[in-house]
Amino acid sequence: MRHDPFKPAKRVAGQRKDVWSIVNEAAEQGKVTPMVNMGQGFFGYNPPNFVLDAARDALSRVECNQYSPTKGRPRLKKAIADAYKPFFDYPLDPDKNVTITTGANEGMLSAFMGFIEPGDEVIVFEPFFDQYISNIEMPGGKVVYVPLHPPENGATQTTSAGDWKLNMRELEAAINDKTRMIVINSPHNPVGKVFTKDELQAIGNLCVKHNIIILSDEVYDRLYYVPFTRIGNLSPEIARLTLTVGSGGKNFYATGWRVGWLIGPEHLITYVSAAHTRICFSSVSPLQEATAVAFEQADAHGFWDQSKKEMQAKVKRFNEIWDELGLPYSDPEGGYFVLANLAKVKLPEDYEFPPHVASRPRDFKLSWFLIKEMGIAAIPPTEFFTEKNAHLVEDWLRFAVCKDDKVLDTAKERLRGLKKYIQ
Amino acid sequence: MRHDPFKPAKRVAGQRKDVWSIVNEAAEQGKVTPMVNMGQGFFGYNPPNFVLDAARDALSRVECNQYSPTKGRPRLKKAIADAYKPFFDYPLDPDKNVTITTGANEGMLSAFMGFIEPGDEVIVFEPFFDQYISNIEMPGGKVVYVPLHPPENGATQTTSAGDWKLNMRELEAAINDKTRMIVINSPHNPVGKVFTKDELQAIGNLCVKHNIIILSDEVYDRLYYVPFTRIGNLSPEIARLTLTVGSGGKNFYATGWRVGWLIGPEHLITYVSAAHTRICFSSVSPLQEATAVAFEQADAHGFWDQSKKEMQAKVKRFNEIWDELGLPYSDPEGGYFVLANLAKVKLPEDYEFPPHVASRPRDFKLSWFLIKEMGIAAIPPTEFFTEKNAHLVEDWLRFAVCKDDKVLDTAKERLRGLKKYIQ
Repeated sequence: MRHDPFKPAKRVAGQRKDVWSIVNEAAEQGKVTPMVNMGQGFFGYNPPNFVLDAARDALSRVECNQYSPTKGRPRLKKAIADAYKPFFDYPLDPDKNVTITTGANEGMLSAFMGFIEPGDEVIVFEPFFDQYISNIEMPGGKVVYVPLHPPENGATQTTSAGDWKLNMRELEAAINDKTRMIVINSPHNPVGKVFTKDELQAIGNLCVKHNIIILSDEVYDRLYYVPFTRIGNLSPEIARLTLTVGSGGKNFYATGWRVGWLIGPEHLITYVSAAHTRICFSSVSPLQEATAVAFEQADAHGFWDQSKKEMQAKVKRFNEIWDELGLPYSDPEGGYFVLANLAKVKLPEDYEFPPHVASRPRDFKLSWFLIKEMGIAAIPPTEFFTEKNAHLVEDWLRFAVCKDDKVLDTAKERLRGLKKYIQ
Repeated sequence: MRHDPFKPAKRVAGQRKDVWSIVNEAAEQGKVTPMVNMGQGFFGYNPPNFVLDAARDALSRVECNQYSPTKGRPRLKKAIADAYKPFFDYPLDPDKNVTITTGANEGMLSAFMGFIEPGDEVIVFEPFFDQYISNIEMPGGKVVYVPLHPPENGATQTTSAGDWKLNMRELEAAINDKTRMIVINSPHNPVGKVFTKDELQAIGNLCVKHNIIILSDEVYDRLYYVPFTRIGNLSPEIARLTLTVGSGGKNFYATGWRVGWLIGPEHLITYVSAAHTRICFSSVSPLQEATAVAFEQADAHGFWDQSKKEMQAKVKRFNEIWDELGLPYSDPEGGYFVLANLAKVKLPEDYEFPPHVASRPRDFKLSWFLIKEMGIAAIPPTEFFTEKNAHLVEDWLRFAVCKDDKVLDTAKERLRGLKKYIQ
């Protein structure tokens, strides 16, 4: 026998245990049950009824249960073009400027597959959504990291997510002849920062100067609590370089539906579609149809306003506990994640952590302790940093507040147990 | 500016118009309406009510609308393990031997992404399902083709799909040190052949001898009209090399649901799962749940027997027209595709074809003519061959019979119009 038939490809081999597995597996064995899971960013409640009704209706129609066109159902492409027209100064043609993907995640992979050749570089800000990395590496791209710097006083006082800052000189220094794309994420996960118009203009200008495609992950685009700017609409020169990513799952509380889309100029969208066709062929038909109806009816139901108002109220409701405990946090400008700073929490010195947690930064130990002792799961954000910069956030934890109010209240009650560990 | 920012990656650039686009676009402009579309293999009817009810029920449950575990919902993995246990002599652990994917297509991509390094070779039989090719090339694999030979008398008399033969010497000659995987497809699309136990044993022995992973696409596994063998169950030596691919969309008449799976030994499934996580993260939750219920209840509803009986009846009902016209066809042993041989059909000499059809083999012209003049769409099978071997099937067309009986009857009535062109 010439070779080991079972040797996996490098792209999937030998990766360490990911944060979702660590947190979810730990959550199954905690002392306090049922676990309050504020880890993964799934909703603790259902999509609104008008959206669920549309999905049920779609299931009754033969054509909605069969293959959709690879670029997406015409009704959904039109509904998205109509819904996003107010946000863009340039016209949106449903057939040329919109393409449907199997969730935003596979949409971003399609963009990288559409434009990245082996050795090309892609700039990503730290902290990053972890899927970006494997999605860039799959077509042979190299990730180049530029950190967002947390506020210097973030360990001692509550700050705004907007205080996490990009150093434009660091960004420009990361650009070279191989830089092909940059990933922006606003509202940002996990930071909750909404990039200002000035920040985006500066980033956009650099991209125009260096001919860099902008992949703007805007999946939390309806949840902003400060003015929200879309980089793809700042100027015609920036627009021609920009792909904007959206998510039906995030917009309509259905992260398991796997309906996403990219919006952008035809010369970019064409190749995103081509890659998507080769990856998934087509996307889930009945839930595409339901997402189309969701967009068509959202305004009439006052859904967008209500959605934003409700989520902002959840952020406020949950963060009361940090004020009460005297622990600082980063107040989000958008999205549904809160970063709390637990530098003041002293873990018991003799507490035993399993090896796969003991070997990771302090935030993994904080996460483990909260799961095991308090029955609350949160995500350690060093997972979203390179080793070099992980120290920046080793005292923080990420909490997803897209849960029922009574779950948030239970979480607050349990977090009161932290009092005796706070110094 | 140093480079063209809009240059697509080679993997998506410069491909000719695919057969689905040609046929679907032509179908929109035919003279006879509404078009009878027997092209793409989607069902002309809905999934059974017990499956649709399960989907509607899932939509009411919060956890069924949110992210599923990346490897699939535990209930679906268990339902599949239970449903497939009777077909395999080795035990199926839902957590180790089953992984859920976003349709069979993305499942196969995940397998290639899990094991293929640039330069590795994958053997594919011609004709092939066209998505295989881009899925193999995406991780840098090289496709090596081995033809299935049509029956020599296929142009003059009706034959069995089983008469399409693999030449084992040609297969062995295609194997070299770089051969990493082979793709089998039984029941076969578009041929309709069900590979015999002897054929599969010979293929499996070669794979054991040369340490080649077998990716067995069995998406039509409930639709066989002759004895059906699963290569993954022929021997322990073959089993440890085999990944079996299945499809909820094909099993339950819902090609737009995008729920597929792979079954196999843990040392292979692990890396398919890892690749799938990096491609799609997770798959569509409510329809995974519905597919689980579908498997749980299928036997009680007598669904598998009924499904096979109904499809076989459709094959028979449709093929009457070829007997009536005196045109030979290849009688399928499984699946829902019929290959008819139209060598005797003489197209009008002065008929004008558009350039993108005129430049292709005769089957594209036959397809175009049937769409435009008769209102019936069928697929030209040379698309599923390399240029070198396309001549083998330039007189054949592929018809999908998974349509309502009255649609099949309309198709037959329209095909009677061929009489005047038959010589």
